[in-house]
Amino acid sequence: MRDLVMIFFISPLFISLSVSSAKNSFKPKEPCKHIVLYYHDILFNGTDAANATSAAATNATKLGNFNFGMLVVFDDPMTKDNHLLSRPVARAQGFYFYDMKSTYTAWFAYTLIFNSTEYKGTLNIMGADLMMMETRDFSVVGGTGDFFMARGIATIHTDTFQGDYYFRLKMDIKLYECY
Amino acid sequence: MRDLVMIFFISPLFISLSVSSAKNSFKPKEPCKHIVLYYHDILFNGTDAANATSAAATNATKLGNFNFGMLVVFDDPMTKDNHLLSRPVARAQGFYFYDMKSTYTAWFAYTLIFNSTEYKGTLNIMGADLMMMETRDFSVVGGTGDFFMARGIATIHTDTFQGDYYFRLKMDIKLYECY
Amino acid sequence: MRDLVMIFFISPLFISLSVSSAKNSFKPKEPCKHIVLYYHDILFNGTDAANATSAAATNATKLGNFNFGMLVVFDDPMTKDNHLLSRPVARAQGFYFYDMKSTYTAWFAYTLIFNSTEYKGTLNIMGADLMMMETRDFSVVGGTGDFFMARGIATIHTDTFQGDYYFRLKMDIKLYECY
Repeated sequence: MRDLVMIFFISPLFISLSVSSAKNSFKPKEPCKHIVLYYHDILFNGTDAANATSAAATNATKLGNFNFGMLVVFDDPMTKDNHLLSRPVARAQGFYFYDMKSTYTAWFAYTLIFNSTEYKGTLNIMGADLMMMETRDFSVVGGTGDFFMARGIATIHTDTFQGDYYFRLKMDIKLYECY
Repeated sequence: MRDLVMIFFISPLFISLSVSSAKNSFKPKEPCKHIVLYYHDILFNGTDAANATSAAATNATKLGNFNFGMLVVFDDPMTKDNHLLSRPVARAQGFYFYDMKSTYTAWFAYTLIFNSTEYKGTLNIMGADLMMMETRDFSVVGGTGDFFMARGIATIHTDTFQGDYYFRLKMDIKLYECY
Repeated sequence: MRDLVMIFFISPLFISLSVSSAKNSFKPKEPCKHIVLYYHDILFNGTDAANATSAAATNATKLGNFNFGMLVVFDDPMTKDNHLLSRPVARAQGFYFYDMKSTYTAWFAYTLIFNSTEYKGTLNIMGADLMMMETRDFSVVGGTGDFFMARGIATIHTDTFQGDYYFRLKMDIKLYECY
């Protein structure tokens, strides 16, 4: 009986630690879902409506020489490999704008929309695209459908670019909270 | 004393499972909060400033015929029923833009601002508005005040629309993380 | 041995409560990280490119007299004290737009980018800036690097402003979810 009494005092202590670590210091080693996709952006030049997947909604301002303030809306195909003409497995709908006067950097917010046999649902993503870095991380801040309430990190790498006209990003998406 | 020693070995196992499920695979059956509101958007036509609740900050681009790139800023009333003139219980402040060249779809990011006896605080929401679907889901990515740190899903249904001028969305908001 | 059997029945009960509270009703008393920074915004007037840190990508609409629809892109320095010329410890990259016809209010979404010996990583933030209030809360919806998967609240206070040209916000950032 003396043993049991001690247990009552010990258990809450351990449980309190478990709550605290769930919210405050738990570091998952492995993602609960991992998806790699390529994003293809073809900027409308005024005449190529058939091919274009994005268009500038605002002009660049005169602050610097790196398109500061130019805001581009996109509806871009996402493919499993880095070929523009591969069958898209998702769409990326959202916007980016350029935001430095001394170099090219951008800021993105968008939704990945999946509607295939593999996945149905969306992932909502935002973050700073520090293009001068080999990779940079966006936040996956929510999800719906098969990605109900998901959170994670999307690591971005510029796979190629042809001036303003076409660029391709590798998006390595790791979800660390899945329901 | 032998009993107590065994307890020390058993308890951490259970606790480890509890942490893992909290972050990686816990599926809540029921929301912790459920709010249904109607969103009313009256687009400024250049002369109806008294009634208008939103205005286009950019013109549509020439990419397609569905307002691609038109970005609208709004400060819209939210009501408990679907009557435009009902007393608002919240405001929706944010923006949407059209983002497909082949049909009408939009992308939203906004804050619901509550300042009533019932609720004080905000919910921050973003997602793709796939208008061709009967319902579509946005992510509730954060909250403040009475909605401190909340997360959830807002399910959107187009209740009615009158061309560009007026549209009304039913927003069925289910929070699955409440503090 | 009878004692041990009882323990098996008691422990899961406590642990089940711990999971539920972690996702649905756990209210942390203390943030896991607390950072106070000052945000400095100098709006480009067309000639001061050397000093300016932001520029209007869209003009105000004619809805009201409070810049409704004016969207500003920024790359602003963040300092530890309220001196514009102090060494920046982070950058804030993102945008705001004005969104009321009857007074000045704005809506913000941005990334704080840390690249110092103290912190490397980003915080992604969004919310309604209800300027008429002494303080208002934005949501920290995600983080990367040293702020991996972070969530929290950024409380904003207008420290000073000089018309449109310069304003300074105190941002009191409390993270309640840290990994």
